[in-house]
Amino acid sequence: MSQRIYIFDTTLRDGEQVPGSQLSTEEKIVVAKELERLGVDIIEAGFPVSSPGDFRSIVEISKAVTEPVICALSRAKKEDIDAAGEALKFAKRKRIHTGIGSSDIHIRNKFNSTRDQIVEQAIAAVKHARTYVEDVEFYAEDAGRADLAFLARLTEAVINAGATVVNIPDTTGYCLPDEYGNKIKYIYEHVSNVHKAIISIHCHNDLGLATANTLAGIQQGARQVEVTINGIGERAGNTSLEEVVMALQVHKELGFETNINAKRLFPVSQLVSEMMNMPVQANKAIVGRNAFAHSSGIHQDGFLKHSENYEIMNPHDVGVPESSIVLTARSGRHALKHRLELLGFRYDKPTLDTIYTRFLDMADVRKEVNDKDLMELVR
Amino acid sequence: MSQRIYIFDTTLRDGEQVPGSQLSTEEKIVVAKELERLGVDIIEAGFPVSSPGDFRSIVEISKAVTEPVICALSRAKKEDIDAAGEALKFAKRKRIHTGIGSSDIHIRNKFNSTRDQIVEQAIAAVKHARTYVEDVEFYAEDAGRADLAFLARLTEAVINAGATVVNIPDTTGYCLPDEYGNKIKYIYEHVSNVHKAIISIHCHNDLGLATANTLAGIQQGARQVEVTINGIGERAGNTSLEEVVMALQVHKELGFETNINAKRLFPVSQLVSEMMNMPVQANKAIVGRNAFAHSSGIHQDGFLKHSENYEIMNPHDVGVPESSIVLTARSGRHALKHRLELLGFRYDKPTLDTIYTRFLDMADVRKEVNDKDLMELVR
Repeated sequence: MSQRIYIFDTTLRDGEQVPGSQLSTEEKIVVAKELERLGVDIIEAGFPVSSPGDFRSIVEISKAVTEPVICALSRAKKEDIDAAGEALKFAKRKRIHTGIGSSDIHIRNKFNSTRDQIVEQAIAAVKHARTYVEDVEFYAEDAGRADLAFLARLTEAVINAGATVVNIPDTTGYCLPDEYGNKIKYIYEHVSNVHKAIISIHCHNDLGLATANTLAGIQQGARQVEVTINGIGERAGNTSLEEVVMALQVHKELGFETNINAKRLFPVSQLVSEMMNMPVQANKAIVGRNAFAHSSGIHQDGFLKHSENYEIMNPHDVGVPESSIVLTARSGRHALKHRLELLGFRYDKPTLDTIYTRFLDMADVRKEVNDKDLMELVR
Repeated sequence: MSQRIYIFDTTLRDGEQVPGSQLSTEEKIVVAKELERLGVDIIEAGFPVSSPGDFRSIVEISKAVTEPVICALSRAKKEDIDAAGEALKFAKRKRIHTGIGSSDIHIRNKFNSTRDQIVEQAIAAVKHARTYVEDVEFYAEDAGRADLAFLARLTEAVINAGATVVNIPDTTGYCLPDEYGNKIKYIYEHVSNVHKAIISIHCHNDLGLATANTLAGIQQGARQVEVTINGIGERAGNTSLEEVVMALQVHKELGFETNINAKRLFPVSQLVSEMMNMPVQANKAIVGRNAFAHSSGIHQDGFLKHSENYEIMNPHDVGVPESSIVLTARSGRHALKHRLELLGFRYDKPTLDTIYTRFLDMADVRKEVNDKDLMELVR
């Protein structure tokens, strides 16, 4: 029996904060409906106190989307929580996400506060949020750099105050996978009421480790992951939804499953990329243009013999139309022969060798050889 | 004392295979000289048998670059190795990189061979390569899915045959970090002559785990990492040079160092991106346009109070001109006040509150508020 991992999508909150990615309410509804169709469990829809537009978006998404939980962000402040509670009024299933800094760096430099005051403020925020909703998630900001014992104390306190989910974010993208996994392990071992709540993972990709950190957290007991489509988000972005979902699917031996319909990954990626002005680089895992493209001769030959030689996933599984082979000066005879056959040409070996030599000369000059070039070559 | 990690850059080989990224010889020399200036230890310059253009590029790079080792790729075939040996004729320091499939999937489906035959072919290839150069690297293709005992046997055999470096590639980007680290650990524990060679890591990013897998391999004893600028390469690409280098620099407690001049990372990233037609996505770690941009109100406020609140690296360390703050509807009073002050405007609190309210209305409509917009606002 696989254990269920809950997918908390924050494309419309942490992702939408990105310069140039702001969406109108109407556009956010389009994305939210696609996320619902994709099968995410929770949609973080915005930060209502931050602007009237954000507030309105949460109201409208709450009306338009029925299946996932709709979540609104707030700081550990009464007015923030009031705005979140109000904005969620029409949501069928709703959650307030509130929290405060937990690292000494944040406590001192950002809040000019003390650990004791932080715990008090956290408890008060969770209790106030519970007057609006039954499902309250608490975030311990900058948990990635927080003192472990204090993090455990804070987690225990907010669960006692009524938090149903506790988010342990690596806000600055600082942690290494072992380090992050050990943080989650420590919380499971040192928080007496931990099984009354779900522990959630929220990683950033500043060192390129967000997906690995997220998997490490899952392996240590966390059951919710906070992710975005294409990994968009502050700075180097958040954990990519598509990478975590497919890593769990490819590695079934880990024993976890999600509610995601993976065949929707590529279309949703394209939609979000276009609407939010965030081009996906060609070499992006799972959803990049080249993610399933084979170009070297060695790889093309091996792939044509047996696709499993170079593919651990079938592109159809994630909604990509097909694996593509691009002919260049690095392509071998096998790939050339395959492409010529697709165009309807079959040759004996000596003829193919002659064509291959001319093909290489052409490829050195033109870099990519397309079907039109091939027709020219064989004529 | 930190231990030295050797950076093997394959931007011009695994990176250059990518559709649309092919470079002329002259362009490759430009990139190779930049890699030399960056401080990489080894430049994999191409696959000489694959085309006359590739052969010529290696000859010319060998003449133009003197500091790093120049490496040429070959399959475990006599004609490939001969071409590599010839192409490297002018290199001051030279290496032939030869190898063959090591997983049963590759042995059966790609080579139609047996484990015993593969070992024989590997030994013969290394010995032949040693007739050209003293520095021979062997790659055990698809080691990520290979049987561990066989991988150890193959590694021991090629070191006995004269390999100075053994590359354990996760060719399909399949492994999880623990799994990959354990593979390297197993090799150190089961290959009797392992200390006569350097173990090298070559990962692909199909599941978004290349950087984590590379770090896991280093922690288990590998001392060379095969990487590309911006993580370009086959499919979802190779491990990003900049991510590994900065992860080791940020996490000095791991005790590793490289020869990389990190201040050249951003300029080299820009150069490679432009020359090889591979745009870097805005949220790419270290070198993306937004990697050091703070946009949310909470983050901007915290960042302005103390940059360490949200930055684990200084953008100057990697050659990025400065951290940027972009004003949007998610920006708070503090960020607005800061930007207005940079423009020469100081206001008392009530006036600032009025401007902030108008700013939010403007930001909801215009999405991003630039300096010109702000001037309009305060007039």
